[in-house]
Amino acid sequence: MTPKGFLFSTAEAAIKKPGKKDLALIYSGVEASISGTFTTNNIKAAPVKINIKKIRSGRGQAIIINSGNANACTGKKGLQDAAEIIRLSAKGLKIKPSLVYICSTGVIGTPLPMDRIRLRIPELIDQLGKSSIEDVAAAIMTTDTFSKIVNKKLKVDNKIGTIAGISKGAGMIWPHMATMLCFIMTDIAVNQKTLNRVMLDAVKKSFNRITVDGDRSTNDTALVIANGLIGNREVTEKSSSFKVFRNAIHEVTYELSRLIVKDGEGATKVIEIEVKGAVNEKDAEKVAFSVANSNLVKTAAYGNDANWGRIMSAIGYSGVKVREEKIDIHTGNVKVAVKGLGTGKDKEASDALKRKEVKVVINLNSGRSSAKVLTCDLTEEYVKINAAYRT
Amino acid sequence: MTPKGFLFSTAEAAIKKPGKKDLALIYSGVEASISGTFTTNNIKAAPVKINIKKIRSGRGQAIIINSGNANACTGKKGLQDAAEIIRLSAKGLKIKPSLVYICSTGVIGTPLPMDRIRLRIPELIDQLGKSSIEDVAAAIMTTDTFSKIVNKKLKVDNKIGTIAGISKGAGMIWPHMATMLCFIMTDIAVNQKTLNRVMLDAVKKSFNRITVDGDRSTNDTALVIANGLIGNREVTEKSSSFKVFRNAIHEVTYELSRLIVKDGEGATKVIEIEVKGAVNEKDAEKVAFSVANSNLVKTAAYGNDANWGRIMSAIGYSGVKVREEKIDIHTGNVKVAVKGLGTGKDKEASDALKRKEVKVVINLNSGRSSAKVLTCDLTEEYVKINAAYRT
Repeated sequence: MTPKGFLFSTAEAAIKKPGKKDLALIYSGVEASISGTFTTNNIKAAPVKINIKKIRSGRGQAIIINSGNANACTGKKGLQDAAEIIRLSAKGLKIKPSLVYICSTGVIGTPLPMDRIRLRIPELIDQLGKSSIEDVAAAIMTTDTFSKIVNKKLKVDNKIGTIAGISKGAGMIWPHMATMLCFIMTDIAVNQKTLNRVMLDAVKKSFNRITVDGDRSTNDTALVIANGLIGNREVTEKSSSFKVFRNAIHEVTYELSRLIVKDGEGATKVIEIEVKGAVNEKDAEKVAFSVANSNLVKTAAYGNDANWGRIMSAIGYSGVKVREEKIDIHTGNVKVAVKGLGTGKDKEASDALKRKEVKVVINLNSGRSSAKVLTCDLTEEYVKINAAYRT
Repeated sequence: MTPKGFLFSTAEAAIKKPGKKDLALIYSGVEASISGTFTTNNIKAAPVKINIKKIRSGRGQAIIINSGNANACTGKKGLQDAAEIIRLSAKGLKIKPSLVYICSTGVIGTPLPMDRIRLRIPELIDQLGKSSIEDVAAAIMTTDTFSKIVNKKLKVDNKIGTIAGISKGAGMIWPHMATMLCFIMTDIAVNQKTLNRVMLDAVKKSFNRITVDGDRSTNDTALVIANGLIGNREVTEKSSSFKVFRNAIHEVTYELSRLIVKDGEGATKVIEIEVKGAVNEKDAEKVAFSVANSNLVKTAAYGNDANWGRIMSAIGYSGVKVREEKIDIHTGNVKVAVKGLGTGKDKEASDALKRKEVKVVINLNSGRSSAKVLTCDLTEEYVKINAAYRT
């Protein structure tokens, strides 16, 4: 299920604990189209600053990633270090440095251990092809408990193309990107502008609609790289295969974002908050995030308590004008509140919360717009993980 | 330390668990000036809706409070119930219903147990004077672990006046009022407009600058009632005693708000986040709240980890334009970051976090404005309390 022409390798530079891979290289045999979205945090990690400039060209061939250190809040040295890694990689790969992208994830504020990374770059390049996409997905993990890979095959111009996506997430997850890295590779030829538009829209409906803890990271990056090796005619918005391609990318990003929430730090369940009947999509999204980010809603979900009062309260402070007496709330398929009042079915609704995947539907009954946000519950384990992260 | 002319009583109506007082009455022997601020949550509890209308008169004499049930999201019945409690109390007290205020705190979405409350109102009135202000402070508690009382004596026109304030808080605490009730009583005569302005300003700098979990409640109310029984000339903004009075109210609200944070659900420490060097006060407040509401900052504080990277990240996503390379951060009196870079003093900074009261100072070095916000750490205990709140 690996798209044609992509090679991988991983290495250990002792950035994470010994015995764990923390460097990864993704390489396309040929120059490719590339598109990306990055954190909206005003404080951006060095690699993000660099990628934002590079991506304007729309061209790429390699991505080098380290986990365990975010290379954020590291000043000029951080930028120099990232530039050096790019330079060394490009030299070894014999390609232009402008075609090499760099991503980091991990602890903020500590310089990269360059002495150890420098040593490993030749090894990474020599070993290209000896690692699988699964190895890369594992090497980019930080507090993730499982690796995240999604594959799709689709027909374009009677040729079979493959899309493979990997991501890492876990904590510091919030809309507009989180400590979240996502790499999508495909061997389908795609027009650069089309790739940008499809990716932007897909990210908006997936990674920008998940939340674990309301914290946005300095490092979030989602890249899609398309090398065209199946030899199709370039997909544009006018192509007959456009919709198939767009839907496949949406499915890949949605599924990867769902996996990130599922693996939210300490999470025991995934909660989908759907807000319907809003005046516009922005309002629907605002209400959904207000509920999805409420620590009180998230702890109640953890305790299997269909505490719809906390949901009402979070709707109320979302900043969106709502009419209390019009709001209906479903937990699972149990109507727990109608026209702003409890139905007394709290017991059944609480039973519905006991599943691993829970749906909460809020109908504001004020318009026709809707939005879905994915979140997870808040547990003692989240606190434990984050109180002890650096120790 | 009780202001002249105020009488108290408490009763048990089995709204909370058996053996706990859950009804309280505050009564001034004479009609008084009253001023209040209420939740900004769009979904307001029935008593809040009623008080907001009443308070326009600026006159009051009694406040009846129940804990254990918020009377929020209870529709028309909730409003009828609150009105009936007011009517019955006014009748028993032989005062106009317009002089009786009502407050509720507790679980959202369940109608008040009116049969039991109705029975207790005559008892509450008969027993007036048999309870102390301490008893009232205890009766209004929900998940609070200690009662919150602050007293001040001050000289006005050569007469000694008293200000006594009580509050309850614990969870669902956020700026612009939280599940927070505050009642301030004084025997000093104060001009109605002056009282409004002093209270509004005091709330802005105290209750609106605390956060436990970023959740704002449907019920928040802060009332100040001034009966003038010491016989001073009414305090106005032109009085020589104005500043003394204003400062005393500020001290009372600040101290009560500090006690609420100290008693934050599961909290082990109070954290003051001071942001300096901002372009304006609004920006300073925004940055301070972004840091104070970050679950990652709060769990790190719990783990005594001076993880300044998480602070930088929260500054970055506050929405305020900042220059990373200008930011200094102190934890306790340890400089942990200078000009956006770590000083390597993480160990000393972490030791500074081990106290019960911790100061974090962030200097944006971009202007002259500042703001302080109080928060607490996020612990496993918070999750436990809120996962099991209704069970």
